[in-house]
This record gives sequence, structure tokens and C-alpha cells, in this order.
Amino acid sequence: MNLILIEPHELAGDLATLRDRRATHIRQVLRGQPGATVRVGLLDGPRGVATITALDDELIELRCAWEQESPPAPRVDLLLALPRPKVMRRLWAQLAALGTGRLALTNAAKVERNYFDTHVLEEATYRPLLLEGLQQAQDTRLPLVSIHRQLKPLVEDRLDELFPHTLRLLADPAARETMHDRIPAGFAGRLLLAVGPEGGWTAFEHDLFARQGFVGIGLGPRTLRTDTACVALLATAHAALANV
Amino acid sequence: MNLILIEPHELAGDLATLRDRRATHIRQVLRGQPGATVRVGLLDGPRGVATITALDDELIELRCAWEQESPPAPRVDLLLALPRPKVMRRLWAQLAALGTGRLALTNAAKVERNYFDTHVLEEATYRPLLLEGLQQAQDTRLPLVSIHRQLKPLVEDRLDELFPHTLRLLADPAARETMHDRIPAGFAGRLLLAVGPEGGWTAFEHDLFARQGFVGIGLGPRTLRTDTACVALLATAHAALANV
Repeated sequence: MNLILIEPHELAGDLATLRDRRATHIRQVLRGQPGATVRVGLLDGPRGVATITALDDELIELRCAWEQESPPAPRVDLLLALPRPKVMRRLWAQLAALGTGRLALTNAAKVERNYFDTHVLEEATYRPLLLEGLQQAQDTRLPLVSIHRQLKPLVEDRLDELFPHTLRLLADPAARETMHDRIPAGFAGRLLLAVGPEGGWTAFEHDLFARQGFVGIGLGPRTLRTDTACVALLATAHAALANV
Repeated sequence: MNLILIEPHELAGDLATLRDRRATHIRQVLRGQPGATVRVGLLDGPRGVATITALDDELIELRCAWEQESPPAPRVDLLLALPRPKVMRRLWAQLAALGTGRLALTNAAKVERNYFDTHVLEEATYRPLLLEGLQQAQDTRLPLVSIHRQLKPLVEDRLDELFPHTLRLLADPAARETMHDRIPAGFAGRLLLAVGPEGGWTAFEHDLFARQGFVGIGLGPRTLRTDTACVALLATAHAALANV
């Protein structure tokens, strides 16, 4: 936890009272004492600094001073064919830490149906993992998550609403163009990255994406596991956006 | 397994006999039959195509036809402060899949000593994981691994031998320059990336690296977990090398 995230409903004026893992972290890892300060963030709001005003074995009270500006939302969104539950569990925190504006998890021909029947997709499971990633990365912007059991209506009907004004990129092992090739000089907009299942998209699915303006990007000659590929793509995307 | 890796000692002329997980994979996942072909790679040698010449419940015999050229060694090396065993276990296959020429694992002030007393650092444990990563990525180049219990002699005395002629980059949350900024246009050489422990390098360690010509690179404002940071840095490095 490089930042203690506080939710708006936990604030009373500029005071927050913590009793959970965050309090334990301040007590045991940061070795906080009354009067000391810790870095805080307001969920979907600004970062700031908080002074410990009370601390005992049960609770910690913080007086927060917020910065003027909230951090900008990450400029990369992800449309991801749902991976195996074990892989998805590992991904939540990493996607939040790397910076994902919106995440749409979707079915595809090569996604197994039973992947959807898992508590890894329940908000009660994934929200704490997303918060963990944000606290690691010192961000406050909770990725927006939606889950789609049908790919076709998602790609044909809902992209403009969910991902307005994005440059649409399809990760494609067969593509020769790189992220760098596809992002125009001076590009100041947002990216939508579509990442397929382990077995890849079918020809039908490729067409579906192509008709909605997606262009392919490769990641070199290496075939990566979904979780490695997601981290690699997000990192490369953010690096490319920072350097155009 | 997107490629079946065969070790030189397993070859008799152009024939290889497999009895282990690779045979199971060919039988059960690829549903190989006599006469069918599978993609193969010779460890640290060329890739190729193999024809199944015999197959039963116990073994599979392959007749291999190798390409002329071996894939080039990855152009990125890694000097990594040893992470927690659990994290290191997850990293092996990913580092091999992303492309790591040489990996030096090292102690540092903020590495816990007992991290070295783990079977995750035994070759019998990590070699199969590296092979798994290579087979995923269709590479044949096994990363060279060395383990160093003292940082100072490694950085002061052994870098030229272990990592000759590399551009030396230190991942540093405080650095403003990006990978892209640090790689000269037209650069055709190799990179050495130094990645610190969760708590970062100490000021003494920073000086040690600076005196050996390392320059800092940031990864933006986000602090990442070691495993995420390694994947992100390797991906960004390979993307930057492909685009200079």
C-alpha cells in the first residue's frame, strides 16, 4: 500500500476512521503514530496527505488534506476475452495498478462457458483486488468493469457507449504493425485494446472487430500467456502514449 | 506449448524420442497421429518441424527437420534484486517467454536474506519453468541464470564479463526519463535493466550503479509490484528496441 484509499462514504468532513486492513497497515507497516502523516487517496477523487489524529488497537482516525486536482483517468481501456478464473484472479490488481480506464470482460468462441460461473467475477471478489492495485500504484481511479456473455452485441452495438472516441486496437499475433506504428504522432486520445482468448479469436470474430474499425497490432514473434500479454500490452500502450 | 523443445542430448541423428509431458501434450492436446507434424525447437538451436514417426501410450518418436538459422538471443538482460520466493516462482516462465538473454538475481539491502534459502532458486526447480516459458513463446534460447549473494562485487567487478557491451538502465521511480528517451535512435545493441527490491535501492546502491554507468528510467507515476514491473519493463524494452 503506497497510498491508503478512502471511500467517499467513509469521510465525515475531512475525518476518516479506519478499522480494517488499512488500519493494520498504518499500525504495523508504516508504524504510524499520532501526529504522523500518511499518503491517502479519495476513491475516484484526489490524492492527499492525512495526519493521524487518533490511533489505538481498534481504529485509526485520519484528518485528510486533499490536493486540488484528481489524477486523470488512465488513457487505456481493455476489452478482454475472459481468461481462466485462476488467471483472472491474478489479473485484477495488475490491471488496476498498470492503469485501465474501463475493462469489458467478454465471451468468445474459444472461451469456456464455465469461466463465467466463478466468484472471481463477483464484485465482492474483484473490487478489493482492484483497490489493492490502485493502492500499490498510488492511483484513485477505480476501473469501470462490465461483463458480457455475448461478444457480437458487445462489439456491434455497445462500443460507442462504453468506449467513446477510442483508437481501437486488436492484439493479433499475425499483425506486423506495432503499437508504436498505430498511434499517430501527437495522439492525445484514448486507446481501446482488445485481447483474445488463449486459443485466439476466430475468423468470424476478427471480421466483427475489423468492421468496427479495429486495426491489428502484434507484440513481436512471441506468443504470450494471456496474463503476461495483458501486462505487456498495457505497459507498452502507456509507454507509447507517453512518447508520441 | 506452442513449440516442443528438444534438448541436444535427446537427439539421435534427426530422431527424438519423448516420454514425458511433451509426449502427453502431443497425444492429448495436439491429438498427434503418425505422419502428422508438430513445431519443434532445439534448445539453444534452431526451430523446425517434426513428423511423428511412432506413437503409443508410452512414447512418441519424432523425425526433426531444422531451420537453417537459430533465433537470435533476446537483446535484453535483467539484473534483478531477488523478490519473494512466491513472486520469483511466478516470474521464471514469464521472463523466458518475454525474452531475457541473461538473468542475474542479486541480494540488496532491502532483500530479506532468507529469500535465498528456497528451492525456487535451485536449477531443478527453475529450469522446467524457463523451458515452459520458451515453449509458450516459441523461443529456443534458454536464459542464462546466475545468483549473487553480494551486490557490490557483482556491480563493481562482474558486469563487463556477464553483460558485455550493454546499455545500462536502472528502473527508478524517481527518474523522469523513459526507456524511449534513453535508447539512441538506430540503437542496435543490447540492454541491461536493473530492477530493485520492493522497498527500492538504497542511496548507497544508487551510487554503486551510477558509478558503473547506469542511467535511470521511470515507468511513469505508478509504483508497480516487482513481478508486474519486470513484465512491464521487459515488454517496453523489447517494444522500444523494435522501434528505434
